Order: sequence, then C-alpha cells, then structure tokens
Amino acid sequence: MPNSEPKVNAADNLSLGRRGFLAAGAGAFLCSIGGQNILVEKAGDAAKADAAAARVKKPAGAKSRLASKTPGASPVDQLTFTTPEPQPGGKVVEYWLQARVASWDIVPSRPRRDFWHGMAVAGPTSFRAFVYQPMTEGFAAEAGPAEIPGPTLECEVGDVIRVHVLNALPDKYAQAITMHPHGVRYTPEYDGAYMGDFTRAGGYIGPGESFTYTWEALPESVGAWSYHDHGPNHTLNTMRGLFGAIIVHPRGSARPDLSKVLFLHSLAPPTTGLQRVFQCINGRSYAGNTPTIEAKVGQEIAIYAIGMDDAFHDFHIHGHRWRKDGGSVSTDNQTVGPAETITVRFTEDNPGRWLYHCHVMSHQDNGMAGFYLVKP
Amino acid sequence: MPNSEPKVNAADNLSLGRRGFLAAGAGAFLCSIGGQNILVEKAGDAAKADAAAARVKKPAGAKSRLASKTPGASPVDQLTFTTPEPQPGGKVVEYWLQARVASWDIVPSRPRRDFWHGMAVAGPTSFRAFVYQPMTEGFAAEAGPAEIPGPTLECEVGDVIRVHVLNALPDKYAQAITMHPHGVRYTPEYDGAYMGDFTRAGGYIGPGESFTYTWEALPESVGAWSYHDHGPNHTLNTMRGLFGAIIVHPRGSARPDLSKVLFLHSLAPPTTGLQRVFQCINGRSYAGNTPTIEAKVGQEIAIYAIGMDDAFHDFHIHGHRWRKDGGSVSTDNQTVGPAETITVRFTEDNPGRWLYHCHVMSHQDNGMAGFYLVKP
Amino acid sequence: MPNSEPKVNAADNLSLGRRGFLAAGAGAFLCSIGGQNILVEKAGDAAKADAAAARVKKPAGAKSRLASKTPGASPVDQLTFTTPEPQPGGKVVEYWLQARVASWDIVPSRPRRDFWHGMAVAGPTSFRAFVYQPMTEGFAAEAGPAEIPGPTLECEVGDVIRVHVLNALPDKYAQAITMHPHGVRYTPEYDGAYMGDFTRAGGYIGPGESFTYTWEALPESVGAWSYHDHGPNHTLNTMRGLFGAIIVHPRGSARPDLSKVLFLHSLAPPTTGLQRVFQCINGRSYAGNTPTIEAKVGQEIAIYAIGMDDAFHDFHIHGHRWRKDGGSVSTDNQTVGPAETITVRFTEDNPGRWLYHCHVMSHQDNGMAGFYLVKP
Repeated sequence: MPNSEPKVNAADNLSLGRRGFLAAGAGAFLCSIGGQNILVEKAGDAAKADAAAARVKKPAGAKSRLASKTPGASPVDQLTFTTPEPQPGGKVVEYWLQARVASWDIVPSRPRRDFWHGMAVAGPTSFRAFVYQPMTEGFAAEAGPAEIPGPTLECEVGDVIRVHVLNALPDKYAQAITMHPHGVRYTPEYDGAYMGDFTRAGGYIGPGESFTYTWEALPESVGAWSYHDHGPNHTLNTMRGLFGAIIVHPRGSARPDLSKVLFLHSLAPPTTGLQRVFQCINGRSYAGNTPTIEAKVGQEIAIYAIGMDDAFHDFHIHGHRWRKDGGSVSTDNQTVGPAETITVRFTEDNPGRWLYHCHVMSHQDNGMAGFYLVKP
Repeated sequence: MPNSEPKVNAADNLSLGRRGFLAAGAGAFLCSIGGQNILVEKAGDAAKADAAAARVKKPAGAKSRLASKTPGASPVDQLTFTTPEPQPGGKVVEYWLQARVASWDIVPSRPRRDFWHGMAVAGPTSFRAFVYQPMTEGFAAEAGPAEIPGPTLECEVGDVIRVHVLNALPDKYAQAITMHPHGVRYTPEYDGAYMGDFTRAGGYIGPGESFTYTWEALPESVGAWSYHDHGPNHTLNTMRGLFGAIIVHPRGSARPDLSKVLFLHSLAPPTTGLQRVFQCINGRSYAGNTPTIEAKVGQEIAIYAIGMDDAFHDFHIHGHRWRKDGGSVSTDNQTVGPAETITVRFTEDNPGRWLYHCHVMSHQDNGMAGFYLVKP
Repeated sequence: MPNSEPKVNAADNLSLGRRGFLAAGAGAFLCSIGGQNILVEKAGDAAKADAAAARVKKPAGAKSRLASKTPGASPVDQLTFTTPEPQPGGKVVEYWLQARVASWDIVPSRPRRDFWHGMAVAGPTSFRAFVYQPMTEGFAAEAGPAEIPGPTLECEVGDVIRVHVLNALPDKYAQAITMHPHGVRYTPEYDGAYMGDFTRAGGYIGPGESFTYTWEALPESVGAWSYHDHGPNHTLNTMRGLFGAIIVHPRGSARPDLSKVLFLHSLAPPTTGLQRVFQCINGRSYAGNTPTIEAKVGQEIAIYAIGMDDAFHDFHIHGHRWRKDGGSVSTDNQTVGPAETITVRFTEDNPGRWLYHCHVMSHQDNGMAGFYLVKP
C-alpha cells in the first residue's frame, strides 16, 4: 500500500480544489461528542473533534449507581445478558482486529491516473486514515494489511461471530472507539454504541484496551452488512475509514463464485486535510485504483454495494441486470442510502471490460467508478 | 407541552448556528403561492409567504364559468362526484380537527438535554408551529393537545374516514389551508389540493371556514400514510408542522401490539426563526425529547417511518431487522423519501435500551435519534 | 416547438434567479473530459467542457497495439464479438436518430404560465439543447420533432433493437457523442461508453459520423429504461437533453392502454445559460407545459418515472396508488434515483383532474409537476 507523498501539481489540484469541493457537496458534517457539537468542515476541525473525543471518559456503565440516577433511566438499563453460543451445528468464527491509524493513498497508481479516461490525477492523495486491521490470535502480529475497508467477517446462519477489537490508536489520536454491526443479533452489551451514562460494555474501548464482541447470525441475517465505529467520535471516525463488512451465508449453502463488497463513500477535505473531495469505492478513487473486479462467464456473481457516507448513491453496472431486492423487478441501477446494502446477484454471461459506477454523475466523474472484467 | 422561552446560551448556540445550518443543509425552500415564487431562506421570508398566501382569494371553483374559460380547462373539470359511503360492514370513522398555531418546543426537556450523549442543548428551541389539533364534535372543545404531528387517523378497509377541518389560524396568519391525504381514495372534491381556477371544494378552506373530507379505505390503502396541508401555502405550512398520519388496517385483523408513526423532518431557521437547524422526529430533536418507544418481548411491533421534508433519510434501529417492503430481503436500514412511508414489522425478541436514528450522520448528530426500550 | 426568445421580465426573473438557483440546488456538476476535470457551475463553463470534448481524439480502439500497452490492459480487451440476431420469432426493430442541437423552450406556453397556480412565469426560458431526433431511413429526412426526451424505442422480448445514430452536431459544438442503453443486453462494441484507450466501436461517434448499435431484449429487459450519451462529454450532454427511453414489452403481451415515460430532471444555469434552475419533466417546467396525461376509467395505465439528473426525486400522483416494485406494498410516493426507473401500474378508476409531481417540495414548486386528466 503506497503511502508516499509525491510532488504536487498544485495548479491542477487547486483548480479542482475549492470547486470540486463545492461540486461534490461540502463534505462538512456535524459531530455530537462528549457534550459538544463540533462541525467538521475544514481540516483543523477534525483535530477539535479528536480533542473532544479524547476528553470523553469511560462511562460507569448503564447498571451503575450513577446511571440509575440519570434522567431517563429505565429498568431495562439494569438487565443482564448472557453471551450467545452457536446454534446446534453452528460454530464460533473468530476475528482479531486492531483499530489503528494508517497512511492511506486514495489514488495509489503512479503516475496517478484515472484509467477510464486516461486522465492524470493531481496529488497529494494520501491521508491519515483510521482502519480496522486483521491480526493474529491475541493481537500477536498483523494478519493482513491496514486497509479501507477492514476485513470482511464471514459466517453462516447458526454461527456466532466473536470479534476481538483492540484500540491501537496512537497517543496523538487517543480516544475510545467501538465496533457496531448491522444485520446480526446482539445484546446491548455487544451493540458497540456509546450512549453516555447508558453505555454498555462494548460501547467504549479506551486507548490500549480491547473488547470481545459476540454476535449471532440469524436466518434473517443472511446477506451483507456493514460494521463501523459507534464510539464517542464515530461520525468522524467512520468517515475516516473505520468500517468494514459482514457477510452471513445460509447454512451449508453453495457460495457465489465471486463475492465482492463495494463501499460507496467520500473522503472530503474536513476529514482528510487534502485539497479536494474524492468520491470513493473502498477508499479509492478513479477506475484502475478502485477495485477491478475479475470474473468469468458462467460464474455466480454477488456484488454488495453499501453506502458509507451522508450521501445517497445509485449503483450501476454496464452490460448486466439484476432483480431489485430479489423481487420481480429487473434493474441495472439502484439507490443505496447510508449504511444500506443492495445485493446484485446474477449469473455471468457477458464477457468484456465493463464500467461500474455511481450514476450520480458528479460522484462518477469525481472518482466513484471502476472496471469489471469478464473473461469468456 | 412546554412553550416557554428560557434564557439563551448564545455563544454555544451561535457556534452551532450558522455552521450547523450549513452542515445540515440550507433549510431553504421555494414556494409557489398565488402567482408568486417566494424563496424562504431566512426568518423574514416566512412572513412574506404568509402575506402572499393571505392574498390568495377563494377560487370560483373548477365548475365555474371563470374556470371553464381558463387556459387548459377540460371537460373533466365539469364532472360531479358523489360522496362515498362505507362498504357493506364498514363504518364511518369521524374526526374533528382544527388547524391552528401553537408554540412548540423542539427540545422540551429542562435543562435541555440530549439524553444519548448526556449533552446540554442550547436554547431557545420554541417556535410558532402550525398544527392540526383534535377537537370534540362540532369543534366544541379541544380533544387533545396541539402537537406535531397531528392525530393519527385510524380505520379499517371498507370504512370511510370523515374529517371535519376548521381553519382556526389567527388573523396574523390568516390564509387558506387544506388537508390532503395519501393512500386513501378520494374524489377531486376531497383531494384537498389548491389548484388555482381548477380548485375543487376541499382545496381551499379560508380563515374561519371548515370543510368535511370523506375518504375511502380500499384494500390497497392498507398501511400508514401521511396527510398534510396542500393549500396555497402548503410547502411552508407543511414544513411548520401541518401534517399527521393515517393508518388503514385490514378489515377485522388483529392489530400490532405496538404501533408507532415516526415523521422524519427538519425544522430550519427560515421556518422557525430560530438560529439553527434541528433534525427532528415528530417535531422533537435529540433522544429523550423525540419519542421514547417502550415495548416488551413477544409483542408484534409496527413502526412507520415517514419522510416529511425535502431530504432523503435512512431509518435504522439497533438490535433489530425487518423485511424490506415485506419482501424477501432483510434490512435494518432503509431509505425514506419525502412523503414516503417505510413499514418496519417484527416480533420483539431483544430486550434492552436501543437507539433508533437516521443513518445520515449529520441528521443523527443534529437530533434525529431516539430511544427504543424493550422489557423482557 | 416554440424557440423564440420573447421579452424578459428581468426583475421577476432575477428575484428568483440567484435565489431560486440556491434553493433548488447549485446545479453545478463535475465533468471528466479528455484528461481534464471541468467544473460546470456557470454559463461559460459549458463552453470550456465543449472545447475539452472537441479535443478528445478518436481512440485507436481497445484491440489496437496502443491500447494493449496501456496500463491496466487485459486480455478481455482483445476479445471479438458477434452482432446479435433476434431470437426465433423475434424481429429487428430499427431506428434512425440524429444527435443535434435544437432551441428548446422549457416553458412554451404564451404567456408563460404555471397552470396549476395560475402564475405567470418570467422568461427567457429557451436554451440550446442537445437532443436525439428521429429520422427516416438513411437519415434522409426528419421523422419527428427534435425534442427532450428523444423518441421512445419499443420492442418485445426476443427482438433486437438496431439504432443508427448520426452525430449531426454543428461545428460550434463539434465533439463525439454516443448512445448508451440501460436494461437491454449488448456486447462491449455496443455499450456506447467512451473509455479512453479501452473504447470499443460504439464508444465514440465523431462529428459527421454515424454508428449502428444492436441491442438484445432479454426476458429480464422487460420494463422501461433510459438511454443517454456516454461519450467524452456525457455528463454535460445528458444534462442538456441527450437522453430518451427504451420500453421492452413481454413477447406477444397485451400492452397497457396508456403508457407514458416521465423523465425527472433539472435544467440549471450552468447547462442552459439561463438565469435560474428549472425542475423539469421531459424538458418542461410547470403544469400545463409538462406533459398533461389524458386517460379514461377502465384503462390499464403504465407510467414510468425515470431520474435523469444528479438529484433524488420522489414521484407522487394524486388519487391513485400502485404496488411498489410490483410487490405487496402499496404506495403513492416512491423514490427515483439517477437513471433509475419506477413503474407505476394501475387500472384507472378515479375520474377528474389530478396533479402528479415530485414530492421534494422545492422541486415541485420549481416546476416539477403536471396534470393527469381522467375521463369517466
């Protein structure tokens, strides 16, 4: 993963800079953190949000005496929960992940290039991302690269996913993080949401701490879902890259021949400190940098497009169609909202080089596009 | 319902003010009123829209000689319609509502508080809302509070809903209003839409006047729908709170144990005269002020999320999933467009304190979130 | 089709001008053209995009020696494809279309009028559109008007559509165009997408050139879809009007009694050079200018609403409901994303004059509304 900062074509970059920023949406967002509202709309604001997040202390917990006196406290805050086990025949699927910072290059090709248009892309394009990195057991060593998105967690119905999460953010960015999953079943202890005095165990993983989440894969969990930070600073941290996917397969089913998760999101100046907005797929901008998906005629294809910013997107693949939400309507273009998944399933029958992209044209032209290559 | 205007933490408020405004969308909107286009983008503009609306005279009616000479007039404008009766076995469900102004507090807790983050919220948070208030027969007396949203109108398939609407706006805001329903069947007379010279009877209820709408609940009307003003100034008035819900149940069916309508909408400075945008659920911002929904394991739950502004939202509940549009796809996050309803049905099986919120993060962090409490 | 430029009510127009512009969205968009990013945010920028597009030379083609040395080249770029023939019992449906400029009036009524509100609309309202115009065989003569949208291409499952497209843009606007279809099946040669060095035959139709696309109507192609420019300047050209619809019918099926395609899109100052944004349906703004649809009780109605800009819309018809995506949920208001189609099918049973409109109120009030007239 390249993380160098090569020389900048400043003029080119600036000509897109302010303007590309405006064209693609302000990229500003509001964060509620530890008793403060912080608007992140320019580079320095992220540091303010980090500072506010650093001041958020570990809550005493929903069952504490403090919480029971908190306005709005309820008997449900005193409930205790057991950690789920797999269903008969199911298994425990275990992951070790650390949340860390990593230099991340949005356009890693050199020279930087949009391979669709044969267009040079001006740098710099690297920023300090927050990512979930896969680790070996006990967080002993890195088990894979530090990437946007984090690793895809996969299991079958009846399994439980056990995810050990270590907060390995460096001092400069020290703050609590969590991991909140979509689609699976969890008790409040494993919700992974910071909730002030009502926070449960998994809702605050302080710097240097780790926590183990246990989630159940129900029959109605089948499909692809996102996970992401839901700690005190989760809006900014999610925008920065602290997200990934969960795929729950039906028990014992044949899996698709090709399965690909595509996060549709933006990386904007307030988040990156860079001079322009990038419209991204899996943290990358522009075809040839975004995932190039390679398939073969006859394969069963499953593409999961998931929104992961504040915008609505519209996912399109050239040369193919799918059943919208598995129903009777055929589509080749479907709306994807924030944290929403659309599932694109088809049997591959059309060889060649194809584009996939967001059909919001300003997103597409700002990098939210990629290649899909099909061999006969 | 608190409507006081306590002391303002101006610094805090202003720091969110212009910026929160920008972060959350301009909150500006355009109104076509009585031959004028009026852009409502700052506090004083609403008064201009009100003045324009006050000048809109009662149309002579689509069947009048005037209307028959209006460019674009059609023979369908001369049609007459009968008022529908209930189907065999059905009944008339009757409501009396008055449209009035009411002081409405977006964050009524004192001290004002976001109970999710334990965060203080700066005031003022009250504004002059327009609401439909339930009344006793003949508009004799108030039958319930003046709230955002108005009362939920409920019936079964085969019934007719008969709604008597009184325009009780005070002189300062004197203008015509209407009530336009979604989902049910109605003739043009009961459409409740102002249409200039083509306006039918229910399309203009002048100050001090009342009108009785009669709507049919068809089999395909099953579900939850919105009603809202569709008079000469309906864009502004709907933004101000002149809306509510209709629920049509299948005939004779068991009803859900818990049924809750949640309107997702914003209250912005041009509408409220306040200093910042609030992202709201049922007219309230921030968990603990927005509806706290209380359920119990084993209950059949029906939550209806309805968009009621110019934005697209994405409804999420922690710890739960539902069938998207009743089909085969399971989701926990679904797009909701303006005046669109999504239906969230599940059997409750997961006790604890949960968050529900819009997954557009700037909406969530700006108040569009609430608590869902489930007892074992 | 009126294309005069009558006298301007400047004051009225300007009062909406900058403000209507802001209210309805900036209307700015980013174009990647021939190695450049060009932000189209004001009138002069379109000329810059045109100049950049004029400089894009015809690619040597994906199978050329040049392309095989292009970074990212793949064996799939060397594949050859055969032109499809109809399925047994199917036929070839042939169209001749020329891409040309045409003066297009967004509000053609005189005096300009919003027939819903009886409101005068200030001019000018004409601009230089790019459109696909139907021609007779061999492009011998015009076979219909030059309109937004282009002609609807209709066929049945098993047919092939053969579209001959002539680039008849005048010297001032000389640049390559294409035609990219949704929904139907095509090989890369007939994708109609400019892809730099990877461009296939149909991905660049230079000034004065023509190309013949051959597309297959599969069973899963049933429904309505858009076609639009996907050449080097496709974002701007699509915004300007270079789009239309394809309808694929089931083989041998009875067709709906009334079938209507409605494109929901905007025409903004950066595209038109006019002083304000217009929210449009089929290139027109304001009821009475937008399509007035005329139906009769008992008819089978099919309305296809297709998004064709960068915004999300929400399609509503008064007095009617339909099954969302043909499923079990009834709706009268449905989200439509860019290049997405929603299908509104019902049996007409409700006579009168009805409104249809986008339920994003600023879109509706800015012209995205029309009349639906139903005779008994």
